[in-house]
Amino acid sequence: MDLVDLIKNIKEYENKEINICGWIKNHRPQKEFGFISFNDGTTQNGIQVFYDKSIDNFEDVSHLLVGSAIKVIGIVVPSEGKDDYEIKASSIEILSSCPEDYPIQPKRHTREFLREQAYLRPRTNLFTAVFRVRSVAAYAIHSYFQKNNYVYIHTPIITASDCEGAGQMFQVTTLDIENNKKIDYSKDFFGKKTSLTVSGQLQAETCALAYKKVYTFGPTFRAEESNTKTHAAEFWMIEPEIAFADLNEDMTIMEESLKYVVKYVLDNAKDEIKFLDSFVEKGLINKLEKLVSSKFTRITHEECIKLLIDSGKKFEFEPKYGEDIAKEHEKYITEYFNGPVFIYNWPKDIKAFYMKQNEDGKTVAAVDLEVPEAGELMGGSQREENYDKLLNRMKELNMDTKSMEWYLNLRRFGSCVHSGFGMGFERLLIYLTGVDNIRDVILYPRTTKNCEF
Amino acid sequence: MDLVDLIKNIKEYENKEINICGWIKNHRPQKEFGFISFNDGTTQNGIQVFYDKSIDNFEDVSHLLVGSAIKVIGIVVPSEGKDDYEIKASSIEILSSCPEDYPIQPKRHTREFLREQAYLRPRTNLFTAVFRVRSVAAYAIHSYFQKNNYVYIHTPIITASDCEGAGQMFQVTTLDIENNKKIDYSKDFFGKKTSLTVSGQLQAETCALAYKKVYTFGPTFRAEESNTKTHAAEFWMIEPEIAFADLNEDMTIMEESLKYVVKYVLDNAKDEIKFLDSFVEKGLINKLEKLVSSKFTRITHEECIKLLIDSGKKFEFEPKYGEDIAKEHEKYITEYFNGPVFIYNWPKDIKAFYMKQNEDGKTVAAVDLEVPEAGELMGGSQREENYDKLLNRMKELNMDTKSMEWYLNLRRFGSCVHSGFGMGFERLLIYLTGVDNIRDVILYPRTTKNCEF
Repeated sequence: MDLVDLIKNIKEYENKEINICGWIKNHRPQKEFGFISFNDGTTQNGIQVFYDKSIDNFEDVSHLLVGSAIKVIGIVVPSEGKDDYEIKASSIEILSSCPEDYPIQPKRHTREFLREQAYLRPRTNLFTAVFRVRSVAAYAIHSYFQKNNYVYIHTPIITASDCEGAGQMFQVTTLDIENNKKIDYSKDFFGKKTSLTVSGQLQAETCALAYKKVYTFGPTFRAEESNTKTHAAEFWMIEPEIAFADLNEDMTIMEESLKYVVKYVLDNAKDEIKFLDSFVEKGLINKLEKLVSSKFTRITHEECIKLLIDSGKKFEFEPKYGEDIAKEHEKYITEYFNGPVFIYNWPKDIKAFYMKQNEDGKTVAAVDLEVPEAGELMGGSQREENYDKLLNRMKELNMDTKSMEWYLNLRRFGSCVHSGFGMGFERLLIYLTGVDNIRDVILYPRTTKNCEF
Repeated sequence: MDLVDLIKNIKEYENKEINICGWIKNHRPQKEFGFISFNDGTTQNGIQVFYDKSIDNFEDVSHLLVGSAIKVIGIVVPSEGKDDYEIKASSIEILSSCPEDYPIQPKRHTREFLREQAYLRPRTNLFTAVFRVRSVAAYAIHSYFQKNNYVYIHTPIITASDCEGAGQMFQVTTLDIENNKKIDYSKDFFGKKTSLTVSGQLQAETCALAYKKVYTFGPTFRAEESNTKTHAAEFWMIEPEIAFADLNEDMTIMEESLKYVVKYVLDNAKDEIKFLDSFVEKGLINKLEKLVSSKFTRITHEECIKLLIDSGKKFEFEPKYGEDIAKEHEKYITEYFNGPVFIYNWPKDIKAFYMKQNEDGKTVAAVDLEVPEAGELMGGSQREENYDKLLNRMKELNMDTKSMEWYLNLRRFGSCVHSGFGMGFERLLIYLTGVDNIRDVILYPRTTKNCEF
């Protein structure tokens, strides 16, 4: 039996015998009896187990330390403590007793300490909440797209091409590089130079032109040496791609899917979100509920810059037409509109080659979603569906059009207006949990000089 | 509007106007009218569009070739053809006309040809069925585990350790290997030698001892140079891990989850499975339904060998106690029991270090699931939860116990009986679709000397 099922239906179990395995989270042994904070990890809060000398092994049990694994047989009874119910044990079997040097004690540990104990930190209340929210949010994403007729596709992780021509990549090889004098890629596993993917978008486009609506949800990689709170070398991305959808529809889907996921997490990870609201980010529930009920604003990049200039506010970075916007600008804009803001039609020179060129010759049909207290949470664009325009843009950027012939051909064979977007899963989790460091929403984070466990 | 929704509720749309975008799959233009096999890719079967001279651009439309993208406005009317309904077009907007050299024509293409056209093959009926089954099966897996209180975890892709000491691995690096005289891993991105994961199991165990029930579903990698129908260098795996579960419970979960997924696909990809039953594997539906309703047999490895020997059958490989079994043996056993068979308690020397050592000193609590017409579909084991036994086994095998201290420590801090299993997602798909080559159930397969798109 899982504790979560017991707690969900606790009234039905009143005065009935149950049998459950789990761990001691806290222990207050007294002379004649004792209280155990008990959890099997399927719930945020656990349940109290009360025992007294009526159990066979009272002495042994009363010496058990935090972290020990036990099997409890007992009766569910109304509690006199803070919870409604507790278990009155008739037997406690010791599955393993945990030693004193167990690092996870019932006190507040610093997040830095817990990162060093990454293989044990899932057991803490904080990471129980974070990783269960992660799981529930992942399911919410699948659930939204599957309900809406999207096909889930697995785009390749190992790739011989570089999606945006940008982004530093990890090389993948089976060559014996330590003893090789000369690197001969024809002898490498794939017979050529290969890397880890930075995005599945281009491959996703091939499927959108087959199934209309598709999405990816998989790991992506950036070999950036940035040691910040929001960068990891390995992270998960969701990349939906939709045929016959223009930028406006793209924004509608971005808004709808984000609200769905946030609402789903609020509804299906109640205890976890409540815990995070209490101990990590005060006001978290309010923030999330507000997002779900808000209407997202849509403004062009030009309107955004005008607004920033007209504000008269002194920014560290001066807002300029034709240029990117800074974090402080994002913050101002979301506060100004008091909610999420889509900024669309970006200067083409600061955006990727595949984006739909607008008629003004200066902008592309790209969009960033800025969310209060989160910054950029999603980015998308309508894709250039015109063969000649795409080819010219690639030539302007000195891209290898030969190896990208298949991508160009999508514009010859059944081409149509299509759009898509990307969402970094860990950014979403930072927003959903209130935890501010990406290292604390990933089980075993991979960052510069860090690849433990 | 998605075609799948229109078809699902077609009666409600009778005599109503609809507006839908999609592609021409086949076209039979006549002098005064024409028939288009139309699909937007959200369904297996599509719908027929009828048009005549009443549309403005009759001439242009009647010259459209297969693959062209169109937007149809029309009325849903009862059909005189093989389907119940068709669309009588009042307007057909040409979104893009497809040229004659479009490789995907309405005829049978060989699978070899389609592999070369991998970016277009998702548009064929075969791959529409395969990749939608892939998507539905993936969702079924999430759905089963989430409903049963499992936490979905993302174990790392880049790793500094090698799960089973076996399996050739891909190296991951940011060193400039072409121009580096001496390889200095302290200068590599992670400051050490790193590879692509071959399994997330060991990391999953750390989470099972926190949340009781967890599962992974992500890509894994093997740099094996085997050019067979069932090997790919990059494939997806599902690895559940369950605390407080012994090998028997493990088998129960394996059986239950497999049946759930197969049943879910039968119920939720009806048209796709019907197509595959007709054109790829006659009897597919029967095979899958039989699996769902069967009771899986459980026999020990020793019983299995005895059965093979006692059969008196001449095998190419002679069955032997203490050794692995061959494909022909698997086949005999599943035919003998006329259904899936769990073979458990394997000779320890041919199994992994982490498996629970049985009291006989010779076997470990490992299990393989053999399925008729599929062979081994899942493999699992109870894990050794005893610190000393695990340590001794690792020493026997000359493993580096220092770098695995965290894994060993799981046996010091809250250790308990726990078990898990792994299922290769593509193997399952080969079974579900009847397609016999792993290259045809992966969007862009990665195999020896092959990394296209």
